[in-house]
Amino acid sequence: MRIAVLGTGQVGRNLASGLANIGHEITVGTRDVKTTLAATEPGAFAGWAEQHPQVKLATFADAAANSELVVNAAKGTATLDVLTAAGAENLSDKILIEVSNPLDFGGGFPATLTVKDTDSLGEQVQRAFPQALVVKTLNTIANELMIEPKRLAGGDHTVFVSGNDADAKATVTDILTALGHEDVIDLGDITTARGTEMYLGLWMRLFQSLGTLDFNIKVTR
Amino acid sequence: MRIAVLGTGQVGRNLASGLANIGHEITVGTRDVKTTLAATEPGAFAGWAEQHPQVKLATFADAAANSELVVNAAKGTATLDVLTAAGAENLSDKILIEVSNPLDFGGGFPATLTVKDTDSLGEQVQRAFPQALVVKTLNTIANELMIEPKRLAGGDHTVFVSGNDADAKATVTDILTALGHEDVIDLGDITTARGTEMYLGLWMRLFQSLGTLDFNIKVTR
Repeated sequence: MRIAVLGTGQVGRNLASGLANIGHEITVGTRDVKTTLAATEPGAFAGWAEQHPQVKLATFADAAANSELVVNAAKGTATLDVLTAAGAENLSDKILIEVSNPLDFGGGFPATLTVKDTDSLGEQVQRAFPQALVVKTLNTIANELMIEPKRLAGGDHTVFVSGNDADAKATVTDILTALGHEDVIDLGDITTARGTEMYLGLWMRLFQSLGTLDFNIKVTR
Repeated sequence: MRIAVLGTGQVGRNLASGLANIGHEITVGTRDVKTTLAATEPGAFAGWAEQHPQVKLATFADAAANSELVVNAAKGTATLDVLTAAGAENLSDKILIEVSNPLDFGGGFPATLTVKDTDSLGEQVQRAFPQALVVKTLNTIANELMIEPKRLAGGDHTVFVSGNDADAKATVTDILTALGHEDVIDLGDITTARGTEMYLGLWMRLFQSLGTLDFNIKVTR
């Protein structure tokens, strides 16, 4: 599929390369292409882009407009702004994979959640873009595990999908399976994103306790 | 050990019988012994007590006073009230195992959390009873799994301990191991109870999606 990955940070880069590796045609979206490519500090996007010549770069709007499916890989605090820049008309009737978390690091680590319990970032996105088919997923694991689940326990751990459209969740589950995720639980409609976002409260403390990003949960049942 | 289990509901009964089965001397605590024993409706405590003659019944205060370790098995909304009835002096310098969750079912299911993110019920209990050695644990699983973890996947799943006192957490971990819990993660001090309590947001949606209480998470790392 033609997929837009919105965000040039580590999450965006990893998802772009992971999705390209399983045969998708990827355009990374950014606010300003010239500015993104002009940056030359260590770790800047241009160096990564040189190593991934099959991945294109475009504005948020152009990337979304020319895609069949959109992945939001912006930070939680930037998500609604990035999607607005992408344009509601470019998200309409498309699957929107939402992987961000509503984390506020203003008080240090562990972060607090800007929305929780009675609402979620997944729902905020769905309300702001009612024509998009929002599927919340992959927000419960570090970005390397998102695209390479088999690096941990041969892939024997769980990820979740939340969303209002059954066909959209089925398509996303197929993509997750192609990435190597062996256990995908459909939690229900987009309100169940409250569950996976609140799990970050435990995830952050597990990260502190275990001292590694290479962990996940397997739902034993 | 002489253990007081505060609460005569399903959680209290299960913990009482489970802890008795591994050799502990158990007194269940209740608000009023006569009232508790006088109830005769199906499922009332008296019937259960007949089947568990090794378990004693006493007031919250007497149960706590005559114990070396106290387990709070009250509902989250009743926890601080029950512990107040047990008496700060009867909790002083004792391990207090705290298994409740701050759930408000007023809006139906899934419940919302009365405290979260920047505070937790575990911390509220520790602040209210500063001389108690509070260890938050077992709040992430249904009560049958608490005492019989091997009923699920041979026990290959994870529980957590949060608390400020390392020796208290070690003692509680020994008890958990004796109950059959094979994987106990020490998350850190009592503030990490925020993590396991917020996990309930995911637990409740997993319960809805899976349609069973017989599930848990295994932290794969």
